Amino acid sequence: MDRADLERLDRDCPLAPCRERFVLPDGVLYFDGNSLGALPRTTAAGIGALVEAEWGEGLIRSWLDAGWFHLARRAGDAIAPLIGASAGEVAVADSTSVNIFKLAASLLRDGGRPTVLTESGNFPTDMYILEGLVGLLGGGRELVRAPPGGIPDAIDEATALVLLSHVDYRTGAVLDMAAIAARCKALGVPVIWDLCHSAGAIPVALNRCGVDYAVGCTYKFLNGGPGAPAFTYVSQGAIGGFEPAVTGWFGHADQFGFEDRYRPADSIEKCLVGTPPVLSLRAVLDGVACFDGVDMAALAAKSRRLSDLFIALADRRLARHRLELASPREAARRGSQVSFRHPDAYAVARALIARNLIPDFRDPDILRFGITPLYTRHVDIWDAVEIIDAVMADRAWEGWAGTREAVT
Amino acid sequence: MDRADLERLDRDCPLAPCRERFVLPDGVLYFDGNSLGALPRTTAAGIGALVEAEWGEGLIRSWLDAGWFHLARRAGDAIAPLIGASAGEVAVADSTSVNIFKLAASLLRDGGRPTVLTESGNFPTDMYILEGLVGLLGGGRELVRAPPGGIPDAIDEATALVLLSHVDYRTGAVLDMAAIAARCKALGVPVIWDLCHSAGAIPVALNRCGVDYAVGCTYKFLNGGPGAPAFTYVSQGAIGGFEPAVTGWFGHADQFGFEDRYRPADSIEKCLVGTPPVLSLRAVLDGVACFDGVDMAALAAKSRRLSDLFIALADRRLARHRLELASPREAARRGSQVSFRHPDAYAVARALIARNLIPDFRDPDILRFGITPLYTRHVDIWDAVEIIDAVMADRAWEGWAGTREAVT
Repeated sequence: MDRADLERLDRDCPLAPCRERFVLPDGVLYFDGNSLGALPRTTAAGIGALVEAEWGEGLIRSWLDAGWFHLARRAGDAIAPLIGASAGEVAVADSTSVNIFKLAASLLRDGGRPTVLTESGNFPTDMYILEGLVGLLGGGRELVRAPPGGIPDAIDEATALVLLSHVDYRTGAVLDMAAIAARCKALGVPVIWDLCHSAGAIPVALNRCGVDYAVGCTYKFLNGGPGAPAFTYVSQGAIGGFEPAVTGWFGHADQFGFEDRYRPADSIEKCLVGTPPVLSLRAVLDGVACFDGVDMAALAAKSRRLSDLFIALADRRLARHRLELASPREAARRGSQVSFRHPDAYAVARALIARNLIPDFRDPDILRFGITPLYTRHVDIWDAVEIIDAVMADRAWEGWAGTREAVT
Repeated sequence: MDRADLERLDRDCPLAPCRERFVLPDGVLYFDGNSLGALPRTTAAGIGALVEAEWGEGLIRSWLDAGWFHLARRAGDAIAPLIGASAGEVAVADSTSVNIFKLAASLLRDGGRPTVLTESGNFPTDMYILEGLVGLLGGGRELVRAPPGGIPDAIDEATALVLLSHVDYRTGAVLDMAAIAARCKALGVPVIWDLCHSAGAIPVALNRCGVDYAVGCTYKFLNGGPGAPAFTYVSQGAIGGFEPAVTGWFGHADQFGFEDRYRPADSIEKCLVGTPPVLSLRAVLDGVACFDGVDMAALAAKSRRLSDLFIALADRRLARHRLELASPREAARRGSQVSFRHPDAYAVARALIARNLIPDFRDPDILRFGITPLYTRHVDIWDAVEIIDAVMADRAWEGWAGTREAVT
């Protein structure tokens, strides 16, 4: 196998034309679309029209005339087929963190069982939100972080709620959603799934797995732009009994009736709280539209093919450089990323970025390459491995060792 | 007094050039800047550059290189002088509703006193958020809606927390912040002030009044765009002891340390939770920049002059039309708006909009005219009263009577 073989694969790939849906800077190998998705070609014009025509000319009238009131639901309906959900089960609003709080607060309100369960190594904000909420509610509730791999065994009759990331943000390891969902159903334990690293990248079958609650991010694989609002999913079966705890006017049954008392909407819109950030919300539509006509099974297959290729080339070219594969070898257990461990992962990431190859660093020792099958090409994998090999071989990263500073 | 007199006043007004900072559609008399501020002239280019250069070209690197990580604080520092706060006391993130929840949850966590107090007729989401939170926390807490005008008398030793709107959204009546703050300090009662209808419109002196907690909107008088994220203020004196209850990764002391446990930042940034919607957040900077070089006392004086003028002309021209003044006559007790009651206020609003005069309707019978002294002119008041008089005289609004539908 050489680069020409991969060029041929790209030429024959039915998803290759999707790359044209994005603006990608020349000469950059972008492997961080699982942190911030690339800019869709339609977004700038869409936002420009929103700002100049809808806001500038339409002013307040655009809440109705331009449909701003329904954007949260419209964006949710666009995301639904990508995660195996139905129309009316998804709304886009607030951040993933806030959405976790909203769901968890409601599910824990009525007490009963003591244990709130998550996995050690879960994305930190997921753990932090539960920590704060358990502290707020008190009442003998306790947050338990099961050891990695300790789910589903840790789930039992004392479990009040489970919060799990479908795909591990560091290693890309995938949890078995169907098996965990079934076990939790049997025990009467509600589960919130965090789909930040799976939505738009790997097959997600919420309805088929009997999942009732999920949240996820729109600025990674869904290309909604920096900090784009996140989604909340509540299944058709669960929405009727779901009673919001964070009760704002956008979730009211008659928002402009200005009643003194809260009455939740009878739909997924009961998960809305305040006025949504319309500019950022609107960009989600353009991001999700990049999936129009894309067969999600074909997309997942391409993701696996690209990451298998990455691992195969790494085995051949990078093994001598102390880069240890951190992702599962088995494609079915791996999200759309390939991660390596290296003691100086931060410095290596900096050196790669200086050569226009953009991966991500995750504390303490993870070098993470996101695979975004809508725009990552087979040749990109080849070129990335070339650059990594060169940077490691001439120890170009050593100049960055010890330079890491806190972000804020 | 005739229209020519008002033209002269506009010519001589030192704030008149500020109107050029906005894009305003030709032929429209916009009196709803207290619901959605007009589009600043710089916003479209700013957002365009953010999307195309920072996101499109910079990609993930822009979190650092373009300063996205610090936007929440930067926007807060820009707002601070408009509300009598200091740098480092304000952060922009989430919606007003969510920000109220964040502050109130933290302030109520440790229990003690039973009563959570607000005013009947307060903006509904303020009441709804407290209602949901009191239901979530239980423990004998009770939400009490004092009758209008019943604040500050209703505040006593049983009060755990007070949430008040500085300016009433329907009538524009202003509460006496200094007096209420002093009374609450004496009783050891924390107060959250909702500044949605005062920030950027009337004098607000948080520091001078000894206020510790406030929230407010950036899409009204601050011109941040539809649904732009809201601000949270915690005073320098209170921030050290403030322990967040909604604890997300953007409020962590070392966000990218990915620690298992939450440790709050030691600054106003502890009030941040999830990833902020960067497009919408960025527009706040352009919105607030419209106040550059503006003397807030002069702005407030112009607001009073314009609304006094509106009331004087209404007395002369509109009294015969069953339009009853709902706002206080005394300028010092009135926010930057003039409201009238009319049994068919909704239909009247529709008829005015059809003639390109845009007010707001608020259930059940309020016709509200927002005065935005950065761009409202003296002649606009004259022209607005002319149109209202004509619409009422020929009963043009009757065609809209009974046509009101729910928004969602």
